[in-house]
Amino acid sequence: MRPSARTADALRPIRITRQYTRHAEGSVLIEFGDTKVICTASVEESVPPFLKGKGEGWVTAEYGMLPRATNTRSRREAASGKQTGRTQEIQRLIGRSLRAVTDLSALGERQITIDCDVIQADGGTRCASITGGFIALHDALSALVTAGKLPALPIKDFVAAVSVGIYQGQAVLDLDYPEDSGCETDMNVVMTGSGRFVEVQGTAEGEPFSRDEMNALLDLADAGIRQLIDFQRKALGV
Amino acid sequence: MRPSARTADALRPIRITRQYTRHAEGSVLIEFGDTKVICTASVEESVPPFLKGKGEGWVTAEYGMLPRATNTRSRREAASGKQTGRTQEIQRLIGRSLRAVTDLSALGERQITIDCDVIQADGGTRCASITGGFIALHDALSALVTAGKLPALPIKDFVAAVSVGIYQGQAVLDLDYPEDSGCETDMNVVMTGSGRFVEVQGTAEGEPFSRDEMNALLDLADAGIRQLIDFQRKALGV
Amino acid sequence: MRPSARTADALRPIRITRQYTRHAEGSVLIEFGDTKVICTASVEESVPPFLKGKGEGWVTAEYGMLPRATNTRSRREAASGKQTGRTQEIQRLIGRSLRAVTDLSALGERQITIDCDVIQADGGTRCASITGGFIALHDALSALVTAGKLPALPIKDFVAAVSVGIYQGQAVLDLDYPEDSGCETDMNVVMTGSGRFVEVQGTAEGEPFSRDEMNALLDLADAGIRQLIDFQRKALGV
Amino acid sequence: MRPSARTADALRPIRITRQYTRHAEGSVLIEFGDTKVICTASVEESVPPFLKGKGEGWVTAEYGMLPRATNTRSRREAASGKQTGRTQEIQRLIGRSLRAVTDLSALGERQITIDCDVIQADGGTRCASITGGFIALHDALSALVTAGKLPALPIKDFVAAVSVGIYQGQAVLDLDYPEDSGCETDMNVVMTGSGRFVEVQGTAEGEPFSRDEMNALLDLADAGIRQLIDFQRKALGV
Amino acid sequence: MRPSARTADALRPIRITRQYTRHAEGSVLIEFGDTKVICTASVEESVPPFLKGKGEGWVTAEYGMLPRATNTRSRREAASGKQTGRTQEIQRLIGRSLRAVTDLSALGERQITIDCDVIQADGGTRCASITGGFIALHDALSALVTAGKLPALPIKDFVAAVSVGIYQGQAVLDLDYPEDSGCETDMNVVMTGSGRFVEVQGTAEGEPFSRDEMNALLDLADAGIRQLIDFQRKALGV
Amino acid sequence: MRPSARTADALRPIRITRQYTRHAEGSVLIEFGDTKVICTASVEESVPPFLKGKGEGWVTAEYGMLPRATNTRSRREAASGKQTGRTQEIQRLIGRSLRAVTDLSALGERQITIDCDVIQADGGTRCASITGGFIALHDALSALVTAGKLPALPIKDFVAAVSVGIYQGQAVLDLDYPEDSGCETDMNVVMTGSGRFVEVQGTAEGEPFSRDEMNALLDLADAGIRQLIDFQRKALGV
Repeated sequence: MRPSARTADALRPIRITRQYTRHAEGSVLIEFGDTKVICTASVEESVPPFLKGKGEGWVTAEYGMLPRATNTRSRREAASGKQTGRTQEIQRLIGRSLRAVTDLSALGERQITIDCDVIQADGGTRCASITGGFIALHDALSALVTAGKLPALPIKDFVAAVSVGIYQGQAVLDLDYPEDSGCETDMNVVMTGSGRFVEVQGTAEGEPFSRDEMNALLDLADAGIRQLIDFQRKALGV
Repeated sequence: MRPSARTADALRPIRITRQYTRHAEGSVLIEFGDTKVICTASVEESVPPFLKGKGEGWVTAEYGMLPRATNTRSRREAASGKQTGRTQEIQRLIGRSLRAVTDLSALGERQITIDCDVIQADGGTRCASITGGFIALHDALSALVTAGKLPALPIKDFVAAVSVGIYQGQAVLDLDYPEDSGCETDMNVVMTGSGRFVEVQGTAEGEPFSRDEMNALLDLADAGIRQLIDFQRKALGV
Repeated sequence: MRPSARTADALRPIRITRQYTRHAEGSVLIEFGDTKVICTASVEESVPPFLKGKGEGWVTAEYGMLPRATNTRSRREAASGKQTGRTQEIQRLIGRSLRAVTDLSALGERQITIDCDVIQADGGTRCASITGGFIALHDALSALVTAGKLPALPIKDFVAAVSVGIYQGQAVLDLDYPEDSGCETDMNVVMTGSGRFVEVQGTAEGEPFSRDEMNALLDLADAGIRQLIDFQRKALGV
Repeated sequence: MRPSARTADALRPIRITRQYTRHAEGSVLIEFGDTKVICTASVEESVPPFLKGKGEGWVTAEYGMLPRATNTRSRREAASGKQTGRTQEIQRLIGRSLRAVTDLSALGERQITIDCDVIQADGGTRCASITGGFIALHDALSALVTAGKLPALPIKDFVAAVSVGIYQGQAVLDLDYPEDSGCETDMNVVMTGSGRFVEVQGTAEGEPFSRDEMNALLDLADAGIRQLIDFQRKALGV
Repeated sequence: MRPSARTADALRPIRITRQYTRHAEGSVLIEFGDTKVICTASVEESVPPFLKGKGEGWVTAEYGMLPRATNTRSRREAASGKQTGRTQEIQRLIGRSLRAVTDLSALGERQITIDCDVIQADGGTRCASITGGFIALHDALSALVTAGKLPALPIKDFVAAVSVGIYQGQAVLDLDYPEDSGCETDMNVVMTGSGRFVEVQGTAEGEPFSRDEMNALLDLADAGIRQLIDFQRKALGV
Repeated sequence: MRPSARTADALRPIRITRQYTRHAEGSVLIEFGDTKVICTASVEESVPPFLKGKGEGWVTAEYGMLPRATNTRSRREAASGKQTGRTQEIQRLIGRSLRAVTDLSALGERQITIDCDVIQADGGTRCASITGGFIALHDALSALVTAGKLPALPIKDFVAAVSVGIYQGQAVLDLDYPEDSGCETDMNVVMTGSGRFVEVQGTAEGEPFSRDEMNALLDLADAGIRQLIDFQRKALGV
């Protein structure tokens, strides 16, 4: 029995609110149950130095968590003067995942920055960030098309992410915090609309996992991400 | 005529949502029009080194802004590795303002940290932070009373804050961003329920201001803060 | 009775020494009693990036304190790797105060940096910095006029600052350290030669203060600053 | 045809030199072809604060690269004042991988720090670090047994790592730099002696990858890691 | 001919002002011509962690320069967030030099921090810091004796420092800035009252120097330091 | 008797391995007994800002030590976020020493960076770095000549370094760690092939040293460096 009484293959309630804040070109509040992340997309008409003059664009991400998004207050990274290794890993993952479905050469010399800020955490914040970040990115790019700055949406496919894990011997989908902190194996899967993988990151927190367990987890993730992409389509009306 | 078409002495619509997030002992979303700040209060059963063994408590504040809370994306302070001077000024002001109405010796050797994170900015974020931070503090302290850890609420008075300024030659209340960025003089006033000042910070952005102008601004602020404290009372049901 | 036996409206002995060090375009030692600050003005023939190409100049300030300027040695900021919030607040205040009386568009694309370094502290260091910094700025700008780089002095008015406070129930002028650390309310006032305010920063350290107390403090500050500006005129011989 | 003319399932020449330097409790030079990493294990008779008094030990890792280990000199992290996100990801991975096969409760309140310093890089540095780090850890723990500080070796299994990827449409084992920088998909696999996974990290650098491709990569990795563990056994003589 | 028209073996005018500032246990303004350094000694009744419980004391130094102590304004180290390599070299040298003449075991578990802050620079700031720092240290230690905290002055000898160099082919004593920046070889010599060396640091800025040149420089330094120690004796009245 | 049983004037076994790693333009492993340092030279076709457009080149050095190069693990500087004062002193010394024998104006607008990374430490790491760094520099410059980018080798002389000291009352050459940590006086001498000094840095760790002792140390260093330069010639085959 899962702490939330969900079945092994059930996502938490997913809510996607577009235009959540006013200033950003894309702004989304995404909720995976009690996990709530604000994802904004900001367009900048220039690229980082390593891309100057190449005619290509860039998509990057930054991730943060309000100090009291979690059960115990964690130290504010701005006050401690550096981002933790965990923060850096997550924001690199979000950036890679969104770049994988963006046609960077069709974007032109522009950078889109996706800011993912967790205002309440209950497990799965990086997956919610990727899933919601995609909507924010989509909105920002659509605005560029509407404004006549791009001829067509430079998006190659949908992308979403979910966590899966072995919790008390059973493969389960979309871990919440009690599962995440108590599971044997934790896997984050990023997948496209066409069912191909962008990232698979499986970690044995306790016992190492077998090939069969890995396959069971990938099956669950596959089904879960298909549902998440349906939520994305519905939210975007496409 | 003000950009928002408000009268000179009108506050923006004020909304206070308690229990906005789940984990903190006090959690408030406060809105001054389009300015939206999440204020959480976290209780810690220890005090900073300079208070160890003195039997007194402490209230402190940290302030942050999501990178795209503003019209143009600003750099994430956690990424740049330090808090700006502006951030530090604001969080010191919030902390002083809340300490001014807290009975620190009745609090015992505990620290309450008020985190004020701006998710959307339209002027007046420090005033919203103080006004909302007070509610979060009140909730956290009430919870300590309910839990039997404190015999009575160690709060001496209400406290709220508002900005006033000279905009196009006229003294106006509760500046929004277009007024704030275009005004001659900007003043932040922090006042208690008994009508006494905790902080008055007036700055001539353009022309220096006269004693008469200062008096007009203080009158406006006084009336505005009385209304804000009514909103606080209503929100708290006291 | 004040610890220094001064009357409530008496400044400490004020001494202004121009050309205190040799290299800077303006160099002043200012003393408010035992508070001693070296203020230098450095001219740079370029402006910060946000002003490039606008034809305007800039005045900025930096503030520091020798580690043993105070009764107890404080940590050297260069060694700890960052400036405290207090330092940043003060240097921002000095910069704003001096810009308020400088005609930045007449200055041309130049930056004047005012360094205020406290070699001995006894309260009122930020006020001494503003008052002495103005002389250093005046000297540096005069040198530009003398050198034919500016047609006229781009100074619109005098500016000086003083602290006032409620000490043992009484409003007093120009707080020294024993008063500063023991007072109920502390107010820093920055005023021009024409008697208008550039900054008013009042803080209740203990009891919040009333409107009447605020008025009494502003009256004292007004009289004190008029005397300080007389000292400035005398020092400059204008 | 691979740039190195290896067959798809061939490892590069593997060399393991124990007791490479003199001071550390375990010191190994591991070479995967032209990739050369010095792995040392340092024993400390205390644990990090979060483990104090729990009777358990800890294994952690740090990773670095000499500035000219690579074709182009990269900036020295000690000079730039921070470790890159990549460095932090890698050292967290090494630490997790080695902890997965260590019986931390049998280790007692001790910390083993594995330092992995790349002196020459040609792809696969994190995998070489894990594979060589295990030997260094084994040596340091054996020394504790020999010294009578531990009754038995607190090691539960062997662990090694290898990278696999899709290079020019083909799944290949143990990528060198030309393959690593040109491949479509890159996967790092960490596996135990009993053939279970500790970590699987697959990333689509270009095209997302299919489930079939993932399976082909895992098959290659499985075979490669079994060979690496044989090299480890031979080096350790167990 | 030297730029200052001094003879090759002439010191600049030396001035030592004790009790220069009010708060420190020792406070000295030392002037080597136009080089002016404030040296303070601060007593702390504890020692750094590496000396805890050993019954010994410690003497350490910190060095800084006001941004406009020099001809061109240099960046404030507190603002840039780190001390330069030059600053660190100098403060380590001052600390070593003063420890060499202090009986640390007779000092007890106390630390004396010598702060040397250059308010005007014209070459030789590290030598002036050592020479003046010794007086500040002497005063602080004498105060401990007077206060009955130490039975006798834990000072083993006098110590002073001077720079010498090869300027336009000639060995000269006590280089000022024009000589320092134009010389071939620069040597800083730290010597005790008994004529033994504590530090000798010779650097070829241009042409490497011969053994004969080195001997000529050491002769000059020896004579100069004897004079400086006479100035110290006179200042201290011992 | 020296701990190593060497005679007072004996160097440790010296080994120089060129082309030690693959990527750098010059790459040398130098061993002074158990002290082992990897020295690489990297050529960059640009100069630091202060030399832009002057037609001159630059040689600079960076120094590091693997955390477990020493008997006790020291903190990784990249993790602590800054280089120690000792590291900065050493890398400045290496850079100055190598620049002293390089014809910077013949080098053209190029920078050579010498990285010296200690993989095993047993005293004398800075001297080994200078001696080995010279070979790496020589190799990198020779490669520029071979590639036709320079008409002739811009090297004016050989340079090498050795430490000498007073150990148990006797002047000894090439201190190893037991001698270095126990000696009264420690001196690092950098000398050219023509027998002139580039740097002499003598420090009394315990008793100050006399002029006679200094002369004895310089004699030993002179003889030692002549041998080191022979090793360099042999290694380079010149």
